[in-house]
Parts: sequence; C-alpha cells; structure tokens
Amino acid sequence: MKKIIAIAVSLLVVATAVAAPKNTKMKYVDASTLTIINKVHNAGKPLARLDVERYKLTKSAINAFSQSTGLAVVFRTNSKNISAHWVTDARYMGTNSSATFQRGLDIFIRHNGEWVFAGVGRPKSNPRVGEHEFTLVRRMDEGEKECMVYLPMFSRVESLSIGVDKDATIEALPSPFKHKIVFVGSSITHGASAGRPGASYVAALGRALNAETPNLGHSGQCKLQQHFVDIVCDTEADAFVFDTFSNSTDKIIDARLYDFVKDIRAKHKDTPLIFLQTIKRDIGFFDLGARKRNDDQRAAAERGMAKVMADFKGVYFLNPGLILGDDHAGTIDGTHLNDLGVYRTVQYLTPKIKKILKKHGIK
Amino acid sequence: MKKIIAIAVSLLVVATAVAAPKNTKMKYVDASTLTIINKVHNAGKPLARLDVERYKLTKSAINAFSQSTGLAVVFRTNSKNISAHWVTDARYMGTNSSATFQRGLDIFIRHNGEWVFAGVGRPKSNPRVGEHEFTLVRRMDEGEKECMVYLPMFSRVESLSIGVDKDATIEALPSPFKHKIVFVGSSITHGASAGRPGASYVAALGRALNAETPNLGHSGQCKLQQHFVDIVCDTEADAFVFDTFSNSTDKIIDARLYDFVKDIRAKHKDTPLIFLQTIKRDIGFFDLGARKRNDDQRAAAERGMAKVMADFKGVYFLNPGLILGDDHAGTIDGTHLNDLGVYRTVQYLTPKIKKILKKHGIK
Repeated sequence: MKKIIAIAVSLLVVATAVAAPKNTKMKYVDASTLTIINKVHNAGKPLARLDVERYKLTKSAINAFSQSTGLAVVFRTNSKNISAHWVTDARYMGTNSSATFQRGLDIFIRHNGEWVFAGVGRPKSNPRVGEHEFTLVRRMDEGEKECMVYLPMFSRVESLSIGVDKDATIEALPSPFKHKIVFVGSSITHGASAGRPGASYVAALGRALNAETPNLGHSGQCKLQQHFVDIVCDTEADAFVFDTFSNSTDKIIDARLYDFVKDIRAKHKDTPLIFLQTIKRDIGFFDLGARKRNDDQRAAAERGMAKVMADFKGVYFLNPGLILGDDHAGTIDGTHLNDLGVYRTVQYLTPKIKKILKKHGIK
Repeated sequence: MKKIIAIAVSLLVVATAVAAPKNTKMKYVDASTLTIINKVHNAGKPLARLDVERYKLTKSAINAFSQSTGLAVVFRTNSKNISAHWVTDARYMGTNSSATFQRGLDIFIRHNGEWVFAGVGRPKSNPRVGEHEFTLVRRMDEGEKECMVYLPMFSRVESLSIGVDKDATIEALPSPFKHKIVFVGSSITHGASAGRPGASYVAALGRALNAETPNLGHSGQCKLQQHFVDIVCDTEADAFVFDTFSNSTDKIIDARLYDFVKDIRAKHKDTPLIFLQTIKRDIGFFDLGARKRNDDQRAAAERGMAKVMADFKGVYFLNPGLILGDDHAGTIDGTHLNDLGVYRTVQYLTPKIKKILKKHGIK
C-alpha cells in the first residue's frame, strides 16, 4: 500500500514538474484568471467552448465541444515580451491543417482600434507531447497593449498560462466585443483549414463584426440533430449563423430542416437565424459522385429554406454562403477552406451579416 | 553467418511486404517509369529534386535537396479512379504547415487546356509511419485525362506508385510545359506554407507561366552561398528566380551579392536572373528586433541590386517581390506565406515574369 502511494506521489510530482513553464525570465498568470471570450455560456470548464454536461450528447460531440475551439483570452499588459505555456491532449493530428492551428495559439494586439495579428505559439511537433511553451511576440515597444490570444482549434486544453516580463503588469481586459453571434456547423466552421486559430473564418468575422463568436462547429457534423437545437435554445445571442448543409444529405435536410427552425424559433422569437448555403465543393469538379451529393444537398437547402422563410420571419439564407472562388485555389483538400477561401468568405459575409444585424437594430 | 543472412532476408521480406499497395482493386505503376517533371537535371535519384552527389554540400543541404520538393509525375490515363501508394521518410513534422503539404500529394487534371486541382493524397497522421496510400480522385467520367501529381514538399520519397482501374490504360505524358525556370530560395520558396504541394507559389507559377519550375528552396537557407552558385552555373534554364534575401542579413548581402551575380553571369551570359525582394514580415509589425533585421536586409537588397543592375545586363529586381498584402492575413506565422499570401504573390508575379521572358524572346 505504501509502495502504491509512493508511486502515486512520484507520478504526481512528475506531472506537476512537467506542466510548469521552463522560461524563468517571465512570470506566468493562469489564463482562467483573465477574461476568456467566445464561450457559449459562462459555465463549465474555463477552457472548453461548451459546458458539455448540460446536454445529452454523443461521445463524439462531448469530445469536440470540450475543445477550446474559438476561445480567446484577452488581457492588458505593458510587457515587451509575451509568452505562453499550455497543455493539450496528446494525440495524432489531422493531416489537412497545421499543428499550430490544431494545438497552437496565435496572438492579436489592438493597434489604432484594429486587432492586428502579432505572432503564433508553436506547439511541440511530437504529437504525443501535450505540453507546449513558446514566446508569442517579443521585443515590442513600451506602453500598454490590449492582447487577444486564440486557443487551439482541435484540442482540449488542460491549462494555459500567459507569461510576461517579470517587472510588467498584466490584468484582465473586459470583452472587447459588443455583440454575440453563435456559429453552428461542420468542420469548415470548426475552422478547417485555416493556418492558425485566429485566422479561422469564425474568428475573423468576430473581429470584423465586433462580436464574440462562440464556435459550435463540429468536424463531420451538424446534420441538424436535436442536440444542436437544445444548445441553441439554451443560449442567448444577438444572432445565430448556421453552416448546417455541409454534412447533411438532401434526405436529412428534407426531413429535419423545417422542425429545426421551428423549434429554435419557438424559443428565440426574434433573433436573426442566418443559414449559409454550403460550398460548391472543388472535389466535385471531377468526382461525379461527390458532385451529385453536393448538388443534391445544395438543392435541398434551397427548397428547404424557401419553405422555412415563407413561414418564419427573421430567418435568412445566404446563397452563396461559404465561398471558395471559381479558381479551384480556395481549399486545402477540395472541401475545406484554406486561408484564401477564408479570406473570400469573410470579405463576402461581413457586409451581408452586418446588414442583417442592422435590420434587427443590432449596431 | 547463415543466421545473419536469414535475418537479412526476413527483414527484406518485411520491408517489401510493408511497401506494397493494399488496394487490390487497382493496378499500380511505378512513377519513375512515367514522366517526372521539375527536376533540376535529368540525373540522380528519380524522386529527388537534385542530384546531390554532384556538388559539395552541407549535410543540411543534402537532406533538403534529396527531398521531392516541387516534383510532379505526369501521365495520361482513362481510369475513372486514381490512387497512389508512396513511401516517405518517417519523422516529426514542422508545425506551420499541414501533413498533406509536407508528406502528401495533390493531383491536377487538364480541363480545357487548364490544370485544375482534383484531389489530395493524405498521408498517415502518425509521423513515425512512412508508408501511405490514398485515392486521389474517384468516380470520374469516361475518357482520357492528362494528370499531374505533385510530390511531398518536405519529405524524401523512397517510392511512388500510381494506381488506376485494372482495365484502364496509363502511360507517360511528355512534359506539358514549354519553359524551364529554376527557383532558388528560402523556406518560402521551399513552399512554406501552402496547404498542399501543388498550391505552393513555385508550382502555381509553373502552371501560370507554362514552365517547369525546379524548386531549390531550402528552409532557413539561401544565404547566397557558393553551392547555390555551383548548382545554378551547372544548370540550363530559360530563367532563374532568386529568393535570396529572406534569410540573408544585410551584412551577408553586402558581402556576397555582387560576386554571386558575377559568378553566375560569367557562366550564363544572357539568361534572365530575376531577384525577388523579400517580404515585409508581418512579425516585424510589433517585434522591433525582427523589424530592424527585416528593414536592414531589404535595404541591403535594394542597394546591392542597384549596384548589380548597373554592371550586369538581364538582371532584374522585383520590388516588391514576394507579397503578403497589408492586412496581416497573408502568413501562417508572420513570416511564411499562407494560401492567401501565395495567391497574392502569384497574381503579382505572373505578369511581371511573363514580361521579362517576353523581353528575352522566351514566349
């Protein structure tokens, strides 16, 4: 028994020793004592996008929504250098995006009112190692700065600490964003495949629309299932954006879309519900099977949305919605937006969504 | 002795068994019996971009130039499905690009005269596994197609086989490109960080300029060293493009640029030598140390190129050269072009390089 305790204690010591910043020139602050934005609710684990225990979810949904996807920590500091120490789950990564996107960080700093990309937090390249430490930005000029660090898009984050110079101050910043727009969707909304977390289309739209943008993208999912209805009905927001046609077959859309909207509208009487037509997949240019599936889902979305919009007010269908461009250069794999596809999508959606918000008196 | 031979034989059997396609519905053809384009010379290992044994190189350069960076295999087939089986070295990957880019493939198919992206070959997600197999595109219509499969950007490729339907034909296609433009440079030229091999700026320029574009980008390198001079002098091309200022300090540029050009011009009397100004790094917007280094190297490039162009004909300095854009959205990490940065660079460089080629009678 003593031996077991001794082993347990030694394991604990090792675990603690492993999960501490090695850079002793900086002082570290637990991110959960700063401000975490883009959470669906202010509940659950601080670095998980959703309080998954609140809902009846599949194991896959629990795993996905326990990730830090879309979250950012905001703070004010006068440090010239900013680093981070973070611990993610350790597992093999997807092949269609960078490790920095899946398990790394990026930092934006406010400059003349705009959020400007300032650096990345590169994770370890060994996928079996979950402890990471990196200097996000260094050698900056003097003065206070407002900072926003985006968290990994495809990882659970066990802990995150922000490091600043030992003589610097760091304090929580209130959320810099005025609105709250919740995004529900597929792997594309989950962020695949931007180069880094803050470059995802949902994060970029958040900065462009002055909105917190909680991200409920679930890779391979959003087939209009009940748990998405449950979460949306349980969530207050200025608007909801739905990428619900990317993984739904035509049959699923025919069967589920009307009730999906009806049930959400029953709870949220006036909130704008904005549906995005899915992409016209590059992969379908040569693959006739993929083309047919894609054409069918797009057609089902069109007829389904026509019916929905005839019966419910404040429901919008942006068609096109997610944009690749016509040059076959907008995806990483024929399906998932790369940074060019994200750029085109954000350029297109920003004024469209602004106009809808304005119509609803959300300025 | 017998035992040793037995072990050696059994290892060989294992190795052979491991490195064979598992998809028995397709027939496989060794890519080296088809046409490999974008090699610096028709020499050396078939799937290495350079015959490294020809030069005095550092270990790092041998490793880098033994990779398949920039290579593509071209063929004609009437198969409705195309797959690939390939074996790369097995090691941890870089964190600022996708596995598909580093060790995967992508395929383009000619459509109305244009090369159109058709699909990817996803590698294994376990970085310790080097054997990969994937269906690049499937369920296509009937008829003959001209195909181009780009090889991994940051891997040695031991073997590559192209799979087609058992009843289909497949044959080598002559190089579809008229010109040969050799690119020498840094990690940016090495491809970091496009989403997949055929999306790199060098590959995209090849398609846009109707040119084979051998890629001599070396991550962290091209500091105007002698071995780049040796390789360029030993290589025939319609033009050379140099990304030589991305990793060179101002001091290196001051010390080496003039002789670099002089030595190349002594061998290639009239060949256009096109130098690209390096990017204005996003990382330098807040990092004053990075900004100074970047400003200094850019200034040294400007003064060095002015001197060079005064003394040598047919030497060009494109300034700007590599393009990020002004919105801080063109890189994956503040330095390396993402797919948006690649797009901007290719849109900008294509007419500039065309104009230079035309001036030299290369049409």
